[in-house]
Amino acid sequence: MDASTLRALVDQVAAGECTPDDAVRRLRRLPYADIGFARVDLQRDLRVGLPEAVYGPGKTPEHCAAVVSELLSGTDGPVLLTRATEEQVKAASAAAAALGVGPGSVSDSGTFATLAFRPGSGRTGAVVVVTAGTADLPVATECTAVLAALGFDPALLTDCGVAGLHRILSEVDTIAMADAVVVIAGMEGALASVVGGLTPAPVVAVPTSTGYGASLEGVTALLTMLSACSSGLTVVGIDNGYGAACAIARLLP
Amino acid sequence: MDASTLRALVDQVAAGECTPDDAVRRLRRLPYADIGFARVDLQRDLRVGLPEAVYGPGKTPEHCAAVVSELLSGTDGPVLLTRATEEQVKAASAAAAALGVGPGSVSDSGTFATLAFRPGSGRTGAVVVVTAGTADLPVATECTAVLAALGFDPALLTDCGVAGLHRILSEVDTIAMADAVVVIAGMEGALASVVGGLTPAPVVAVPTSTGYGASLEGVTALLTMLSACSSGLTVVGIDNGYGAACAIARLLP
Amino acid sequence: MDASTLRALVDQVAAGECTPDDAVRRLRRLPYADIGFARVDLQRDLRVGLPEAVYGPGKTPEHCAAVVSELLSGTDGPVLLTRATEEQVKAASAAAAALGVGPGSVSDSGTFATLAFRPGSGRTGAVVVVTAGTADLPVATECTAVLAALGFDPALLTDCGVAGLHRILSEVDTIAMADAVVVIAGMEGALASVVGGLTPAPVVAVPTSTGYGASLEGVTALLTMLSACSSGLTVVGIDNGYGAACAIARLLP
Amino acid sequence: MDASTLRALVDQVAAGECTPDDAVRRLRRLPYADIGFARVDLQRDLRVGLPEAVYGPGKTPEHCAAVVSELLSGTDGPVLLTRATEEQVKAASAAAAALGVGPGSVSDSGTFATLAFRPGSGRTGAVVVVTAGTADLPVATECTAVLAALGFDPALLTDCGVAGLHRILSEVDTIAMADAVVVIAGMEGALASVVGGLTPAPVVAVPTSTGYGASLEGVTALLTMLSACSSGLTVVGIDNGYGAACAIARLLP
Amino acid sequence: MDASTLRALVDQVAAGECTPDDAVRRLRRLPYADIGFARVDLQRDLRVGLPEAVYGPGKTPEHCAAVVSELLSGTDGPVLLTRATEEQVKAASAAAAALGVGPGSVSDSGTFATLAFRPGSGRTGAVVVVTAGTADLPVATECTAVLAALGFDPALLTDCGVAGLHRILSEVDTIAMADAVVVIAGMEGALASVVGGLTPAPVVAVPTSTGYGASLEGVTALLTMLSACSSGLTVVGIDNGYGAACAIARLLP
Amino acid sequence: MDASTLRALVDQVAAGECTPDDAVRRLRRLPYADIGFARVDLQRDLRVGLPEAVYGPGKTPEHCAAVVSELLSGTDGPVLLTRATEEQVKAASAAAAALGVGPGSVSDSGTFATLAFRPGSGRTGAVVVVTAGTADLPVATECTAVLAALGFDPALLTDCGVAGLHRILSEVDTIAMADAVVVIAGMEGALASVVGGLTPAPVVAVPTSTGYGASLEGVTALLTMLSACSSGLTVVGIDNGYGAACAIARLLP
Amino acid sequence: MDASTLRALVDQVAAGECTPDDAVRRLRRLPYADIGFARVDLQRDLRVGLPEAVYGPGKTPEHCAAVVSELLSGTDGPVLLTRATEEQVKAASAAAAALGVGPGSVSDSGTFATLAFRPGSGRTGAVVVVTAGTADLPVATECTAVLAALGFDPALLTDCGVAGLHRILSEVDTIAMADAVVVIAGMEGALASVVGGLTPAPVVAVPTSTGYGASLEGVTALLTMLSACSSGLTVVGIDNGYGAACAIARLLP
Amino acid sequence: MDASTLRALVDQVAAGECTPDDAVRRLRRLPYADIGFARVDLQRDLRVGLPEAVYGPGKTPEHCAAVVSELLSGTDGPVLLTRATEEQVKAASAAAAALGVGPGSVSDSGTFATLAFRPGSGRTGAVVVVTAGTADLPVATECTAVLAALGFDPALLTDCGVAGLHRILSEVDTIAMADAVVVIAGMEGALASVVGGLTPAPVVAVPTSTGYGASLEGVTALLTMLSACSSGLTVVGIDNGYGAACAIARLLP
Repeated sequence: MDASTLRALVDQVAAGECTPDDAVRRLRRLPYADIGFARVDLQRDLRVGLPEAVYGPGKTPEHCAAVVSELLSGTDGPVLLTRATEEQVKAASAAAAALGVGPGSVSDSGTFATLAFRPGSGRTGAVVVVTAGTADLPVATECTAVLAALGFDPALLTDCGVAGLHRILSEVDTIAMADAVVVIAGMEGALASVVGGLTPAPVVAVPTSTGYGASLEGVTALLTMLSACSSGLTVVGIDNGYGAACAIARLLP
Repeated sequence: MDASTLRALVDQVAAGECTPDDAVRRLRRLPYADIGFARVDLQRDLRVGLPEAVYGPGKTPEHCAAVVSELLSGTDGPVLLTRATEEQVKAASAAAAALGVGPGSVSDSGTFATLAFRPGSGRTGAVVVVTAGTADLPVATECTAVLAALGFDPALLTDCGVAGLHRILSEVDTIAMADAVVVIAGMEGALASVVGGLTPAPVVAVPTSTGYGASLEGVTALLTMLSACSSGLTVVGIDNGYGAACAIARLLP
Repeated sequence: MDASTLRALVDQVAAGECTPDDAVRRLRRLPYADIGFARVDLQRDLRVGLPEAVYGPGKTPEHCAAVVSELLSGTDGPVLLTRATEEQVKAASAAAAALGVGPGSVSDSGTFATLAFRPGSGRTGAVVVVTAGTADLPVATECTAVLAALGFDPALLTDCGVAGLHRILSEVDTIAMADAVVVIAGMEGALASVVGGLTPAPVVAVPTSTGYGASLEGVTALLTMLSACSSGLTVVGIDNGYGAACAIARLLP
Repeated sequence: MDASTLRALVDQVAAGECTPDDAVRRLRRLPYADIGFARVDLQRDLRVGLPEAVYGPGKTPEHCAAVVSELLSGTDGPVLLTRATEEQVKAASAAAAALGVGPGSVSDSGTFATLAFRPGSGRTGAVVVVTAGTADLPVATECTAVLAALGFDPALLTDCGVAGLHRILSEVDTIAMADAVVVIAGMEGALASVVGGLTPAPVVAVPTSTGYGASLEGVTALLTMLSACSSGLTVVGIDNGYGAACAIARLLP
Repeated sequence: MDASTLRALVDQVAAGECTPDDAVRRLRRLPYADIGFARVDLQRDLRVGLPEAVYGPGKTPEHCAAVVSELLSGTDGPVLLTRATEEQVKAASAAAAALGVGPGSVSDSGTFATLAFRPGSGRTGAVVVVTAGTADLPVATECTAVLAALGFDPALLTDCGVAGLHRILSEVDTIAMADAVVVIAGMEGALASVVGGLTPAPVVAVPTSTGYGASLEGVTALLTMLSACSSGLTVVGIDNGYGAACAIARLLP
Repeated sequence: MDASTLRALVDQVAAGECTPDDAVRRLRRLPYADIGFARVDLQRDLRVGLPEAVYGPGKTPEHCAAVVSELLSGTDGPVLLTRATEEQVKAASAAAAALGVGPGSVSDSGTFATLAFRPGSGRTGAVVVVTAGTADLPVATECTAVLAALGFDPALLTDCGVAGLHRILSEVDTIAMADAVVVIAGMEGALASVVGGLTPAPVVAVPTSTGYGASLEGVTALLTMLSACSSGLTVVGIDNGYGAACAIARLLP
Repeated sequence: MDASTLRALVDQVAAGECTPDDAVRRLRRLPYADIGFARVDLQRDLRVGLPEAVYGPGKTPEHCAAVVSELLSGTDGPVLLTRATEEQVKAASAAAAALGVGPGSVSDSGTFATLAFRPGSGRTGAVVVVTAGTADLPVATECTAVLAALGFDPALLTDCGVAGLHRILSEVDTIAMADAVVVIAGMEGALASVVGGLTPAPVVAVPTSTGYGASLEGVTALLTMLSACSSGLTVVGIDNGYGAACAIARLLP
Repeated sequence: MDASTLRALVDQVAAGECTPDDAVRRLRRLPYADIGFARVDLQRDLRVGLPEAVYGPGKTPEHCAAVVSELLSGTDGPVLLTRATEEQVKAASAAAAALGVGPGSVSDSGTFATLAFRPGSGRTGAVVVVTAGTADLPVATECTAVLAALGFDPALLTDCGVAGLHRILSEVDTIAMADAVVVIAGMEGALASVVGGLTPAPVVAVPTSTGYGASLEGVTALLTMLSACSSGLTVVGIDNGYGAACAIARLLP
């Protein structure tokens, strides 16, 4: 256990967020589990406040199951499998059941499936997720699933693109009073600039690969959001609903 | 004189827009004047309703003067010198004076100087030019100077970027009642999408090279405008205020 | 109903384009219908003179049907489903039948299917759609289908690429007398520049993703059209036949 | 004054952050001042909690002075002039003096000068700004100057690039205990990933145009940061130290 | 046999690495075998110390078998078929059997299959292959398979990405004492910079096309590695595990 | 028949390359055949010395058959269908049979099928087509098939990539004595530079999309060839074996 | 002297293009002169029929003079210094005078100066150089200067851009009867496609960096020309008038 | 002193490369010197076998002098200032003199000045640096200056571009017998592929920004080298002669 991890744990004990018993158990955790094809980070939650998530693409169902097992047995908090296929979900669920962990919740956007075990709870920050169009829903679904697993109860405002400005203006109260806003938009991504001018809250913009031709598979929306005339927006990678949820978890208690 | 040029002229006579005397004089025009380094198109106005403009960069002052002279003596309508240096303006003005043409009007944006002789008049379409920020003014100035030379009296709304949405919303009447709107914006160019959703008029979007870093010298705004979620926007090249003015002249009488 | 929408409606009453009864009915329209996964803009036609179209890709057939139903029951004019699959067309048609709306017209280019209910009529502007090659036909078919739904009766000139310049020159009269021209071209897109020099009408250029290798999936044609030496051309996104039709509807009565 | 601005103000009164007298005075503010070449947003602070900053490039010294004057007389909080030349600083300072405002503080990084009047104070969040190399200092200087103007007292850790990993590891305590971290790095930008793995705090990454050749003027660092394997990082535009400071102000009280 | 090949051979005889008999046999080798569709380089090993490998994609199984046969009968050392399909492996193995060559070893990463006949042995340099994540395994598998065929016995350290820095730090001894290190990483590729700062050994970085969106199919990691702040890293093409192995073979005895 | 076409024909009569009877028959040709979805150029051979070829992708088999029929009945020379599917070849062959034209020759590279009716003959220029690797064969096959249809008898040198320089050096005589050379290479395309330094003949370079990762689907080879240090190379588009053959036909009798 | 060079020389003797005495003198030439900072190729003309040219940028005047001296004393034909500054021209001219070589001819386009000693003569092929606009003149001037030095007498047709199609159509005879055509165009480069459809001669297209914004410093014209719908065009690098002249010299006697 | 640094030092003592006294002195070194604007890495040589170099651009002369002073007093080996201006060289030299360090050696390529104090010596590996053209000399000069400072005595072969292949072929012995080769080439960079096929030694390729237009400021050569058909080449960043020298120092004793 390195210095920063140790201090994080001691701080939790001091703040009453962790019992001494738990602390001892955690102190016995290995820093990571080396299972041959992977080196599972068992202290990421202690260090950065976020669980290590298992990213499905490129892994066999057996690989997914093995990493999920390690995380379930070696850590305390939520365990996430993202962008998973049906087979990966099945294999991971079976592995969880073998450990006596109840079935995870599956959030399937049609495009991305997210599987969450031992979801967190009780984070009270008001998070609003806004999408520009219906084609942005898969990314939004991943984002809200991860937010839920991390303990938030996010609100979702769909289809608020600026082509009909009254749609977002009708939600101006919700946005202005949020503790944090995630804006998910493809095509030209202009919604992020508009939202950024309507709220003092932190705004995390997610470009999506929605659209065709000059949308350049999300690059256009990405550049738009990075160049936004509204000050203080920040941006994550294309289609990275997972990353936006993590960014929110870093900035809200 | 080719077929399309001839028909254009005859149509003008029939419509009373050109006297028979003028028509005869015009019929005697050469299709172009070959002056060695250039082949000056003397019938462009007949053919496409727009004068050939002299583009300054890369030409010596003498070259500018020579082409302006040809156009002044060989055509009837406005003559434009765009993106001109002080020396080019001087040389062209002297050439005009030598032909008994009064001094042209100079519009200098600090970045681009536009010189116009024999400006048109009387086009009554309500053209509104909207800019997102003050840094877009040089392009807007070129655009309004060309519009004026082509006979329009455009309105200019400056600094309406979406970071303060109430600025453009306070002009929603002007925009909704325009006959055509030019939106000039750099950085992320989101203003074009917003304006496109507020008016049934044709909207011509001009991306500018304003901004730094991820603005990519106008490419970001260009891609944004091409991918706009508002339907029916059209786009011209980066910083092409001249082209936007010409596009307006094609679509309004 | 926001200010600009309201004024648009009142103007229509004053101009006799809308009966007082219709005006009252429209005033009762919701600004948008929130159906969970979508926020259907019911006043877009009032505000920008164009119906909200349903873009097929990424939507389930049920989603398509639901949005089409909302638009058919909540608005008066044409309703469009673009880039639809056979299943989406079936679902939308069934939903329309359930509302007593007759079968829509399907225009299938082999690549893009466009479904239109309650098409408009009576717009008399002479719109000419020109393609460079036969591979541009799917985009042209989408464009003419949308133009027809918006009330135009466009002429289609196919396969006029500049490799055989006499093909476009044989149509020079049609082009020079058009009220508006749409040029659809892939590969190098040079046709737009040539057409722009032959007509005083507004020219909307549509780059297509036709070609291979250095055509870069339409980016080459897009850049060509934006850099065209003919003044006053405007451009829409790659393969965006729908957008070009909307642009025409903005600029012709 | 629009709805969201009004509510923001009322909330401040209710929370005791604004006296009733101040509230009345603010309510009399115009939403923006139209001074011809600019439309100065006088309610941005109320709406988004950040002052409108004057961006120097492309403006004459007179323009800078005029906008600064409007902001000083029309708003209450800090007023910022960014990326200013010496002439712009002089002109703005003279304008401030004419209004009885004391001399602003100038922060000159050699590349970017930032001028701040009426700086805020008392924000207690622990903000740490980390740079990868000495060439990133101009961007860091802009960032800390803006943070200071917004009321923070940021710590600056310079030259912590990962080529000598012990440099950042020696500051691991400072980073792990920060309330927010700004990572400023050019070249390959790897520092952001490393920092993201060492702290649970929100991390805002700023790519810089430091480096040559394959650094592609900041694009490489930008892409690196957007693709970082550490979860929950967010990114602002290239060299955008100003934007990073504003992002921090959105997420810390 | 050209001059450089001849000298290489003579040097081997002088150094006792090749018997005079072998030298004579080799001298009789053709420089290449022209088999119609291919010109098989039979002296590449003499000239550059590396066998010509057969690259599978785009070749029929028969083509693969024919080139493998030529190399097995016309050269002495290892023969490699890379990125092969199951059919290609079968055809090549049958051709080898027909020549009395025992079955090759197949290394299948799930994505890339590598088939090696007559593998080398006895190279004692300590080569360490490090991957950032599990998704980099296919490229690592190709790399270690080729290293093994060339006579090395590489160590593989998986899943050492910098998001959990302790994972690579726990291997710092292995890395610092290696004779050469291959770093294989996708997404943002930051691991290469970190490893470069921890060892005096030559470091060959392989960007992979792992990740989505802003990872740009490996371009982001490629640019990162080329711009690394750690001095003296070198880079091969995206996903080029084969090339990295060859680079190692050039620099270690 | 336009002026340039007419003159081309008269020149052929004067040179004895065309009988007066043929000339009369040709003069009666329509400039193009408008068959609805296509405008078949019937005078391209007269004008540019090359037949109009039918490009398969995006056309139905019926479309291919119809255009081939028009060209067979409306022109005299070779008729080409390129990049055709099996179905397209069948449909076109049936259409030819219906016109009493014997079966065309099919050249199938595995990737591209080329179908040629009425191939030319008797062009005696020595054309050498050189490929860098076996993966370039499909493009080379298209190129030689088109050359053969245009009347050439090209020599094909395969697999001469510069990694084994002796392979190309062994063919230096053939290359130095050619009348024209086509160099077809993917990956880094260096072969073009080397060949350009070995022959005074015209060299047409064809980049191919061979390779992966940093080959960027042919863009790397394209840029290499355009920047070649050997003077006087010219380049055609990526994978454009057809275009290279046409370029040869323009420059050799 | 390598094999290909020797054979080239012998062929010239056999063809009476070189006297036996000259052949002997040439046989004594070194293959190259190593003058420390440069390795001057003294046999390039024998090998590829083109002199080695001295490229000015990045060389000191002394360097230019030294290489010019080597070429003048070590070869027989034309010697070229391209893209030279005034100082480079002076230094090279002095060096030539010291060798008793008369003053070279300087062709100065305002942007590029070309200095030619011992120009060739007597090549009778009709070369036509066509430019799209006046801004393309510097590249055209370089091209015609090099053509003249290589013995051609090219015709120059300026300012024939397709915005006024009658300009190029008025030269259709000149173009259709040329032995080779060079098309030089910036902006969108459409002129190359049009010219390619009007002549059976070889067409070499030169994209120029003329234009701004979406012209992308010549990349747009380059892509256009590579994707041209006219068959058999070939392309050289951006602004490479020198390369186009060399390409012509390769294909005409 | 961290673990890896400590072990490196102990290894040196054990190998007799460092006296016990020196070891003690070094053990007392700080890991880095924090001098406010910089954090000077004093153990880089121990850790990676390379000194930390001072990169001039963006630093004031005072900054350069301060870092050079720290390195001279805090480390033992060579100290490098790269890409320095005359003022930076002066300031650093004065600082060195103040510490009693004799004048450094300055290597000025006209473009890049490299200043080296306390150069190493005695590394006997045969390093050959090959350039394609004279314009690559500045990068080559930086590379050889750094190699010399690191203790090598490199050979420089200039102007060996493949347009005259005999130039590199005449050096084939030197290249085939080298212990390592650096290939420095701009334009299309083909020389790296050719050299890679002629030697079994490690080859480090350096793309340069030489050339114009399609050379894309070095990107073309970079892509070429990464895609080279010769196996086992490795590449460093554009113009990074310094990095190539460091790579050599990592792989040769």
